[in-house]
Amino acid sequence: MIHHWHTLVENRQSDKITELLADNVVLHSPVVHTEVKGKQLVSLYLHAAFHTFLNDSFQYVREFNNGNQYVLEFSTEINGITVNGVDMIVFDDNEKIVDFKVMVRPLKAINLIHQAMGQMLEKLQTN
Amino acid sequence: MIHHWHTLVENRQSDKITELLADNVVLHSPVVHTEVKGKQLVSLYLHAAFHTFLNDSFQYVREFNNGNQYVLEFSTEINGITVNGVDMIVFDDNEKIVDFKVMVRPLKAINLIHQAMGQMLEKLQTN
Repeated sequence: MIHHWHTLVENRQSDKITELLADNVVLHSPVVHTEVKGKQLVSLYLHAAFHTFLNDSFQYVREFNNGNQYVLEFSTEINGITVNGVDMIVFDDNEKIVDFKVMVRPLKAINLIHQAMGQMLEKLQTN
Repeated sequence: MIHHWHTLVENRQSDKITELLADNVVLHSPVVHTEVKGKQLVSLYLHAAFHTFLNDSFQYVREFNNGNQYVLEFSTEINGITVNGVDMIVFDDNEKIVDFKVMVRPLKAINLIHQAMGQMLEKLQTN
């Protein structure tokens, strides 16, 4: 299950994100309360996240597992700001992602992510 | 290990926090990058957190474990704002907490926590 996700991240294969998502996947962003729902929108959001977070400094630093649920803690540096966060990923019985939650600290990093993700989503949607 | 923490939280025993901390405990706040170091300062910070987060709506909703490390996801409502977060707790070999990291989402909740924790810390320090 989770090794599929790790493979995607390690190889920066944003084009393969959609294959890993369940139709009814829900994404909980670190910034907004309202959920992002459905394969198409979540895929777009994760595409933007790949382009925003996954520079050379990105690495997963801790991993936790409980049944079909995973917590992956990551660390990365964006524009000189240290970003520390967790990806909380739930798989369904078909090994597809049904729930994806992201939290980020500290406040400075969230404000950065808020801005950078907004710009990236805009860019992806107008392309 | 973690059941000691759960007992403290369930019974709102902020007076017993210090007993559970290692001398060299480090706290990573959801708001600031700089670590809070040492039993005395971390205890003060967690006291403030108890008074800020632990109202009647507070509950742990998911738990993950990896050796002596735990991730506890919580949900609470403060001033009408939904606060979702994780406590990432590491115990040492003496079953004392040596590392405590908190992340919170969404942005509105972090801003609220930033303000509320600031006020609570000020109140505790002047008492």
